[in-house]
Amino acid sequence: MLIIGEKINIITKKIAKAIEEKDTKPIEEMAIIQVEAGANMLDVNIGPARKAGPEVMEWLVKTIQKVVDVPLCLDTTNSEATEAGLKVHKGKALINSTSAAPARMSQMLPLAKKYEASIIGLALAERGMPRDANERCAIVTDILMAAAEHGVPLEDIYLDPVVLPVNGMQEQAMQVIETIKMFQDLNDPPMKTVVGLSNISNGSPPELRQLINRTYLNMAINAGLTAAIVDPLEKDLMEEVKTVEVLKGNILYCHSYLET
Amino acid sequence: MLIIGEKINIITKKIAKAIEEKDTKPIEEMAIIQVEAGANMLDVNIGPARKAGPEVMEWLVKTIQKVVDVPLCLDTTNSEATEAGLKVHKGKALINSTSAAPARMSQMLPLAKKYEASIIGLALAERGMPRDANERCAIVTDILMAAAEHGVPLEDIYLDPVVLPVNGMQEQAMQVIETIKMFQDLNDPPMKTVVGLSNISNGSPPELRQLINRTYLNMAINAGLTAAIVDPLEKDLMEEVKTVEVLKGNILYCHSYLET
Repeated sequence: MLIIGEKINIITKKIAKAIEEKDTKPIEEMAIIQVEAGANMLDVNIGPARKAGPEVMEWLVKTIQKVVDVPLCLDTTNSEATEAGLKVHKGKALINSTSAAPARMSQMLPLAKKYEASIIGLALAERGMPRDANERCAIVTDILMAAAEHGVPLEDIYLDPVVLPVNGMQEQAMQVIETIKMFQDLNDPPMKTVVGLSNISNGSPPELRQLINRTYLNMAINAGLTAAIVDPLEKDLMEEVKTVEVLKGNILYCHSYLET
Repeated sequence: MLIIGEKINIITKKIAKAIEEKDTKPIEEMAIIQVEAGANMLDVNIGPARKAGPEVMEWLVKTIQKVVDVPLCLDTTNSEATEAGLKVHKGKALINSTSAAPARMSQMLPLAKKYEASIIGLALAERGMPRDANERCAIVTDILMAAAEHGVPLEDIYLDPVVLPVNGMQEQAMQVIETIKMFQDLNDPPMKTVVGLSNISNGSPPELRQLINRTYLNMAINAGLTAAIVDPLEKDLMEEVKTVEVLKGNILYCHSYLET
């Protein structure tokens, strides 16, 4: 199970301020604390980053990889910023993300090819939110075909079914679980899958969010999920993930399995 | 999801003492508190109950059903005690249990038939612990055939795959999950299934038990489990069960779903 830490995000005041002031300390700390909590990869979300995007992403990638030895998930809609990050990234980066919109695919897929990076393929087309599992499969099929055209190997693609809030779109929760199963069948060996987990509890009361997140992640892992963008500082969530791995036999049981 | 509360068990000092002294108060309290916590049925475990079994079971069934309006799961290896309980039970009781041992089946299945009770069919044969999902299916097939001979309808049978401790028999955890799926396919409509949950964490440190229990129950429900014998006073477990039901769309999402 690939745990992608979500905490380096410009939406957070602390991170936004650190980026603004080119203050490496808060970034380093947030990187280290997430990896110590069990993240195997870190998401670096700088949003649309219209102006200083490339410079910011380059600085973040360098800053983070100076203190932790994990690959990064470059998360911005600015493809120039993505490329600036890829240029200085050590190891195999993950590009977050391309939708099935042709303009977006023709920007991002060549970057995946050029830098031998992995890339997240979102089940999102220009016509709006997907309505069910079948529509999600139809949408990502466009991405898989475009990837083949651009020479991006299928094993470098993580398909994202697009998690929607259970508050308001309750029936989508199981559609996404179903989609995770169906995505795997799109190739042999099975396609990799990823979710942005916290969206499931978006709009739910703060005291329910962690419960909903971890319960849903358990369900998704059991549907075959490969990777999840999560808050690794949610201790109960990380403990439940480890326990699922023990119960599935992927981690050997020992009394101290939570500590290892 | 049928939640069967496990707390009325002669193995507990408090309950053993209450039974010994025919003190209704601790029994009533333990019944009420479990139903308030969300149990839809209560297990009444008096162990082998060799001597006073029938009298004890009758007294317990009457005592419990005087204060709570749920059916009971009569849990004893003493078939006379089981019958004494069935005689005074209001509503549809659940007999816990028969194995595939011919002597046991010929004792318990006629009781299920006579009292129109449901019955748990354990994937246990005389030759010892089942080794994998296929063996479990083979064993319960004997129970289903015997049930048919005795005129017990298949919808009155809850198949129990026999949960084993992850500490020591780690590979059995997924064999049981697989078995839950396979059991359902033994009939159409699907066979009902039940687990004695807490056995999964038997032998694990106390601080891990609730985490292992609730994580495994989530996995089992997603494999299609119908019923579970659990401690309904484990708050995190009951909350996770409710959250699974919300995510599966079986309970309508509302911000206060934990309270309803």
